[in-house]
Amino acid sequence: MSALHSESIVRYFRALQDDICRALEAADAGGRFREDLWERPGGGGGRTRVLEGRRIGKGGVNFSAVEGAMPEPAARALEVSPGPFLATGVSIVLHPVNPRVPIIHMNVRYFEMDNGLWWFGGGIDLTPHYVDVAQASWFHRQLKAVCDRHHPNFYPRFKDWADEYFFLKHRQETRGVGGIFFDRLREPDREGAFAFARDVGESFVPLYTHLLRENQDLPYGERHEQWQRLRRGRYVEFNLVWDKGTRFGLDTGGRTESILMSLPPLAAWQYDYQPEADSEEARTLAWLRKGVDWAGLDTP
Amino acid sequence: MSALHSESIVRYFRALQDDICRALEAADAGGRFREDLWERPGGGGGRTRVLEGRRIGKGGVNFSAVEGAMPEPAARALEVSPGPFLATGVSIVLHPVNPRVPIIHMNVRYFEMDNGLWWFGGGIDLTPHYVDVAQASWFHRQLKAVCDRHHPNFYPRFKDWADEYFFLKHRQETRGVGGIFFDRLREPDREGAFAFARDVGESFVPLYTHLLRENQDLPYGERHEQWQRLRRGRYVEFNLVWDKGTRFGLDTGGRTESILMSLPPLAAWQYDYQPEADSEEARTLAWLRKGVDWAGLDTP
Repeated sequence: MSALHSESIVRYFRALQDDICRALEAADAGGRFREDLWERPGGGGGRTRVLEGRRIGKGGVNFSAVEGAMPEPAARALEVSPGPFLATGVSIVLHPVNPRVPIIHMNVRYFEMDNGLWWFGGGIDLTPHYVDVAQASWFHRQLKAVCDRHHPNFYPRFKDWADEYFFLKHRQETRGVGGIFFDRLREPDREGAFAFARDVGESFVPLYTHLLRENQDLPYGERHEQWQRLRRGRYVEFNLVWDKGTRFGLDTGGRTESILMSLPPLAAWQYDYQPEADSEEARTLAWLRKGVDWAGLDTP
Repeated sequence: MSALHSESIVRYFRALQDDICRALEAADAGGRFREDLWERPGGGGGRTRVLEGRRIGKGGVNFSAVEGAMPEPAARALEVSPGPFLATGVSIVLHPVNPRVPIIHMNVRYFEMDNGLWWFGGGIDLTPHYVDVAQASWFHRQLKAVCDRHHPNFYPRFKDWADEYFFLKHRQETRGVGGIFFDRLREPDREGAFAFARDVGESFVPLYTHLLRENQDLPYGERHEQWQRLRRGRYVEFNLVWDKGTRFGLDTGGRTESILMSLPPLAAWQYDYQPEADSEEARTLAWLRKGVDWAGLDTP
């Protein structure tokens, strides 16, 4: 393993977790992260941080760097040959208190094997309980700007990939308004791909704190909270049924509490719930589809 | 297909759904089932009935009889050759209002193919939010009595099978106190296996109405409701991550709302929640393990 590369990447991700947690505590103006250090029996470990805050109802920011021999089922799932590996990254899910504030997910990760194989992966995607078209468009334009600094085809490729990935096949709806998703990225080279992953990781705080500030003081009532719980139910469905990362972790003996920190504090299911025609809720559902050109939308 | 057999089995399951719904409405003393009739594009359909009641917070009783050509992915999952099939059955999950009343699941089903292949499957299992040892033991003794009328090895085999099946591998805990589970049953012959499935189906109402009556008026507070929501979260995890029936249905384009009627009205997740030592909640967790000889327990 190229210790030089991987050590600096691990160090960077650990520092990124620190920076993000500090910024989120400031933005929450009340909550403090609780930290759990854990070790993986086969090698490596992580720092799981969870906040139950004033504005962020439940937020998880996980750093891990696991290494050792690749277990056979994991190698099969990843379609790599078994052998020593390193996997490191930062993974975040935030469930806000106010239903007007969107749920967000961010992940940046690096994978390396003894045989010289390596790649970066990650992404950011937004799940508004209520779609605000101008904000969703702004969010995508920010992501496009990040991508465009690295390669003109990154945004269109990774935006489409997010549409495909964050899709509830059994509901025929996207998890939210998407974002970007990339995996097994080796372009243009290790330094360049790392620079892109850093840029994605560092865009998270300004993106989310902006969306938090814009929406955190908007009024809401029981109707909006019930809708929030139903949308969180869909989030649970996506993560437990379709999310490859979650299933890979649960199947291969990952740390359950760190993996499932992505689940909301409270979620509801109501049989065959149909929002009223032309309601805000119905308009949100109509936006939960693949292929919306969010960055190109002409919004006020 | 042996129309004689399958028609009478379909008719029986449809009538069983009627009988069970009638009995549950009486036991709920307030709620009424809403019914949705649905058709499967490939052939057959079902009657989904859902109740939001006074004692049963959310209850689903589904009947279906689907037939036609077996889709390729379904054939692969079932390890059968593609060809005309019939699958019919009744499936129930009840989430009670009072945390002192257990969640229950019952299913009886029949599968048949054009090539002469057939089997019965099903089971009943109990998921108390709070384990009452005497009641769990009583529940298992009733199931044992049902099984013993058909074959002396049915209860031990199907009890162990339920322990294995209703297991959250990522939590290393059983979903509840188990019950019986059987699949691909062809013993002693079609008439005999059908008689057993009928006996299981008909044991459901007396079993659950007894447990409901025993517990429905027990007092509870916010602490018990919060624990109930956390246990329901585990129920969601089992159904979405591990339950083969749920995943098979979602993967092969089953009717989503009928499949997911098993999910609770409200569920909670709290990071790394640990109940107080020696609390009722901690004692419940200690019972959620495989291999407890419930029917043989010496309880008052």
